[in-house]
Amino acid sequence: MIRGFGSDNFSGVLPEVFKALEEASYGHQHSYGEDEYSAKAIADFKAIFGENIEVFFVYNGTGANILSLSAFTRSHHAIICTETAHINVDECGAIEKQSGSKLLTVPTFDGKLNIGLIENHMHGFGDQHHVQPKIISLTQCTELGTVYDREELKEICDYAHAHNMYVHMDGARLSNAIAYLKCSPREITTDAGIDVLSFGGTKNGMIFGEAVIFFNTSTTGEIPFIRKQLMQLHSKTRFIAAQFSAVLKDNLWLQTASHANRMAQKLANEASKIPGVRITQKVQGNEIFAIIPRDKIQVLQEQCFFYVWDENASEVRWVCSFDTTESDIIEFVNLLRAELC
Amino acid sequence: MIRGFGSDNFSGVLPEVFKALEEASYGHQHSYGEDEYSAKAIADFKAIFGENIEVFFVYNGTGANILSLSAFTRSHHAIICTETAHINVDECGAIEKQSGSKLLTVPTFDGKLNIGLIENHMHGFGDQHHVQPKIISLTQCTELGTVYDREELKEICDYAHAHNMYVHMDGARLSNAIAYLKCSPREITTDAGIDVLSFGGTKNGMIFGEAVIFFNTSTTGEIPFIRKQLMQLHSKTRFIAAQFSAVLKDNLWLQTASHANRMAQKLANEASKIPGVRITQKVQGNEIFAIIPRDKIQVLQEQCFFYVWDENASEVRWVCSFDTTESDIIEFVNLLRAELC
Amino acid sequence: MIRGFGSDNFSGVLPEVFKALEEASYGHQHSYGEDEYSAKAIADFKAIFGENIEVFFVYNGTGANILSLSAFTRSHHAIICTETAHINVDECGAIEKQSGSKLLTVPTFDGKLNIGLIENHMHGFGDQHHVQPKIISLTQCTELGTVYDREELKEICDYAHAHNMYVHMDGARLSNAIAYLKCSPREITTDAGIDVLSFGGTKNGMIFGEAVIFFNTSTTGEIPFIRKQLMQLHSKTRFIAAQFSAVLKDNLWLQTASHANRMAQKLANEASKIPGVRITQKVQGNEIFAIIPRDKIQVLQEQCFFYVWDENASEVRWVCSFDTTESDIIEFVNLLRAELC
Amino acid sequence: MIRGFGSDNFSGVLPEVFKALEEASYGHQHSYGEDEYSAKAIADFKAIFGENIEVFFVYNGTGANILSLSAFTRSHHAIICTETAHINVDECGAIEKQSGSKLLTVPTFDGKLNIGLIENHMHGFGDQHHVQPKIISLTQCTELGTVYDREELKEICDYAHAHNMYVHMDGARLSNAIAYLKCSPREITTDAGIDVLSFGGTKNGMIFGEAVIFFNTSTTGEIPFIRKQLMQLHSKTRFIAAQFSAVLKDNLWLQTASHANRMAQKLANEASKIPGVRITQKVQGNEIFAIIPRDKIQVLQEQCFFYVWDENASEVRWVCSFDTTESDIIEFVNLLRAELC
Repeated sequence: MIRGFGSDNFSGVLPEVFKALEEASYGHQHSYGEDEYSAKAIADFKAIFGENIEVFFVYNGTGANILSLSAFTRSHHAIICTETAHINVDECGAIEKQSGSKLLTVPTFDGKLNIGLIENHMHGFGDQHHVQPKIISLTQCTELGTVYDREELKEICDYAHAHNMYVHMDGARLSNAIAYLKCSPREITTDAGIDVLSFGGTKNGMIFGEAVIFFNTSTTGEIPFIRKQLMQLHSKTRFIAAQFSAVLKDNLWLQTASHANRMAQKLANEASKIPGVRITQKVQGNEIFAIIPRDKIQVLQEQCFFYVWDENASEVRWVCSFDTTESDIIEFVNLLRAELC
Repeated sequence: MIRGFGSDNFSGVLPEVFKALEEASYGHQHSYGEDEYSAKAIADFKAIFGENIEVFFVYNGTGANILSLSAFTRSHHAIICTETAHINVDECGAIEKQSGSKLLTVPTFDGKLNIGLIENHMHGFGDQHHVQPKIISLTQCTELGTVYDREELKEICDYAHAHNMYVHMDGARLSNAIAYLKCSPREITTDAGIDVLSFGGTKNGMIFGEAVIFFNTSTTGEIPFIRKQLMQLHSKTRFIAAQFSAVLKDNLWLQTASHANRMAQKLANEASKIPGVRITQKVQGNEIFAIIPRDKIQVLQEQCFFYVWDENASEVRWVCSFDTTESDIIEFVNLLRAELC
Repeated sequence: MIRGFGSDNFSGVLPEVFKALEEASYGHQHSYGEDEYSAKAIADFKAIFGENIEVFFVYNGTGANILSLSAFTRSHHAIICTETAHINVDECGAIEKQSGSKLLTVPTFDGKLNIGLIENHMHGFGDQHHVQPKIISLTQCTELGTVYDREELKEICDYAHAHNMYVHMDGARLSNAIAYLKCSPREITTDAGIDVLSFGGTKNGMIFGEAVIFFNTSTTGEIPFIRKQLMQLHSKTRFIAAQFSAVLKDNLWLQTASHANRMAQKLANEASKIPGVRITQKVQGNEIFAIIPRDKIQVLQEQCFFYVWDENASEVRWVCSFDTTESDIIEFVNLLRAELC
Repeated sequence: MIRGFGSDNFSGVLPEVFKALEEASYGHQHSYGEDEYSAKAIADFKAIFGENIEVFFVYNGTGANILSLSAFTRSHHAIICTETAHINVDECGAIEKQSGSKLLTVPTFDGKLNIGLIENHMHGFGDQHHVQPKIISLTQCTELGTVYDREELKEICDYAHAHNMYVHMDGARLSNAIAYLKCSPREITTDAGIDVLSFGGTKNGMIFGEAVIFFNTSTTGEIPFIRKQLMQLHSKTRFIAAQFSAVLKDNLWLQTASHANRMAQKLANEASKIPGVRITQKVQGNEIFAIIPRDKIQVLQEQCFFYVWDENASEVRWVCSFDTTESDIIEFVNLLRAELC
């Protein structure tokens, strides 16, 4: 099977990551975060996001999201998010199990929250029968491949803070958003007013590992204990930290994201010219959503894997990655043309 | 600082593991366990433990233990273990948080359970006010460096099954126990009647990753969902699997354990000759427990790190690893002699 | 303030209940369910619902619902219900906190589930990223005062069982539904295929206490322990049991419900004649939903209390109770007329 | 069977309680705490314990204890208590299920904590692998019928507060302790430094209902939501409140406790004269612990019920209640004499 468009976690690992892992392997290091590599990686994050942050390494995106949300909620608090949010549909109810909190969801067309949508759930405050909205969780890039701009984020954060609430950003694909916006990382996080960020590593060329970055550090004293209870504390922390230092160095994380975005643009451009293909969302990151003829899906998947997104609508998802090549695109577009035309 | 005896998770990674990771990195693979490397590693485990097992990869030892225990318990069930069990003292209450279950603990001299000790908690069955003992969790090697032999294990398993209960083995250092007993892996797991095993990877030369091996597969249909809710499902599973295949190949895992055990024996032999050092537990795995003069601890730690185990008793713990060398031992023994004599 | 239409839990207690409580008070009785009154009340329930049931007394409706649902689910299972379900909107997220399960909700016009609505959530089975639908929870009478007939219930139960799922009935106002349908209690529970029922007591003239009735007894062995952990085990059980025996005796529970229903019919009939009042739901139980002029709500509430149901729609709820009198209705209708006309 | 000594929850209900319930039943009242009776009962509690308290009504003792503890802990915090604490042995692990917290227990001879015992668990602060001790839970009277005096309580509270910890008092039998100490209620609660109290109602002549009294009100803003999630919010709150007003009026709660204590003294005095009976604990409240001949236990129980406390030691427990009479005592002592002499 040729290299497909299933997900950015179908990809391998960046060579720079391997090099860093091997270099980190010599000699003994204290475990559980007391090593030199962790200190280095935290400094690297501070160079990007500012000095007033706290960084906690975890294993995966679900762990990062739950640690982020747990920092600001108890079980009677509610989390406002979109219906398509990863925390709502792809984590097997882990949020409810781990935090006990209810997710208050809103339907969207493009995967993006806004104040009008959020307001649907802004009631019941002080009523003991009603969960208390406490944190807004948004995804950047969204699960539909779209990107919030700085003003949109700032508006949501200002609104949240004015209502004594917090904002979490699920940044599993944050790099793709920054690459799209051509902004600095701070502009859409620290400066926009985000309280806590799940910073993705695995989808951007690492073997494993994510980081939770707190811009609002008012509750971080409890995070080490919460992380441990959430089974997200790695003993050989140096090996998560060293990978992050490698991908953060010389903006490698943004270069790989830019490449993936470019590949997505190219694929979208070419595919949209093919009769029978209709792109359904703006292609702003590395994901493309398209409606294609229902009877062609399987034959295409057999030659080049991708996921069906919405069975009823015959809508599919194509994800580009750091290792997607121009010839992958050409080959797939030819395949599409051959099957559809 | 010279290489110390802090923990086997202070060590780096086996070269074979790196090689396997790099080989696994080329090309795309399905994520979440649907990759070739996972299939291969599961076959490797079956070759060792028998065909009738089910294997689930997780991130860390706490995750492995909780997944194991969750398979056989609900929150009103209780878990019988020693007071010194890792799940009782070193996991920040993660068991209680995750499973809701109570741990029923017993004090021991050597870290080992036996039927007499277990019987202290074998009451209250059917009484709605009382938690219902449902699973016995033992550690092999124990947290005190001792090893259960096959008969001891079989006796506990037979007792448990006769009382409609299950047995979990925390095998973070199982390799050291097998190396000590010079038995086959099956003899002290499958054949002894163990229901579920946390099989350690991180402490034996891997970057990360553990495996949960079910010998009793009566409840495994629910494990994928429980694992996901426990945030222990890795997307790029191939990278855990490939590491396991590398350490299982040609019994590498047992060779490294044998080496660590030998180093521990050597250190114990030499240290015990030094006046002021008293070894407190049988040295059967890769850990040594010793009482040393209280006023020498800090000066020793500053030159060669290790942990204090019991502050009141002035008891310390020295852990040998796959990368501990004879000269490490000699150097440390010389240091001990210099400070103590 | 005159007697209003706030809720059936604004009412006092039936005289028969007091009498039974006093009679039950003499002498000592074993606690925690081992008393004569509990045995008697369970026999009373069996006379109504059949011999093959198991009955567990609890404190309140939220406790009854969660005990019911916990019997058939683990945290990775999902519960399908309406958006307006009491378990979704009025229990402060207690379901998520207690069971860890996700609620999969559907919008409805009349508070009633049907197979078409349920099917929106019948996907993702076997997918480890997706919660697994396991139980359907419906309310009879619904939160909108409407009633499922026997065929509607049977259809849902058959569908659930065909998909390896269960059905829970929240029967806080079951008596009003039976009074409306003029059916036997078995027809819409046991015979329809309901697996477990929250049988309401408090809203029908008791001081406190609800019963959970299992028609499907496959998991009831664990219920005593789950109930205790849910803090729903009363020590002086005789005092819940004696109340139930009193209300079940000579169909008192159905007589009081019939009365409340009649009062609701009368109020609906009279109110609907008043210009500016629009009844929005079929009045099948003891609740009336009506849109009335927004600027009249407060002045009416000050004289005769009731709740606003939907602020945006200017929709209010009027609840009749066992102690609502004809003159209460006349007085309120006169008040409405005076304010609106 | 004659009236026995099984438990104070084998008793019925005080006549004053019935009278209050009936008086409270007339007319409609707002539910969920917004009624006149709740306001009255809270005022009654303030008259006893001082103005700076907050009172929350709940259903039962387990609910009261968990609400109390949840106010001051998160799941990584630990609760220090005795091995014999009700929360440890008689609540089916409800604490662990509900709070996720670990109980750190100490063995005692008399059921009483002291600083020396507490200090066994005062370590691991700041260590992310270790649960963080946060609250001390003690029982007054203890589960062994003994009573803390004011100095003992103050010492524990001062110690806790000096270590940034809290103190919870499980006062299921607080009235018996006050009756024994002949002190004011404030002396051993408010003034001693207790942060939160489970105030028992059921064991002292009520049908159901307990109160949680916060002397430290720093976290009470969240309690209504936590109570609702814990399924401890009663809709017809007036019926809990009215009972409390009845038992608090004219010190009825202390008169009944004094009576029960006197009966216990009498029984202990008489029984201790019988050869073969050895009283094992100081009789300070309404409970007596005694070792009696093993072969006589069953024949005695068949004539007058009581519980075996410690099977191995042949130790039994006799509980006196508000309705225990002198002739009950005489009858039972005669029975004892007949069987044992």
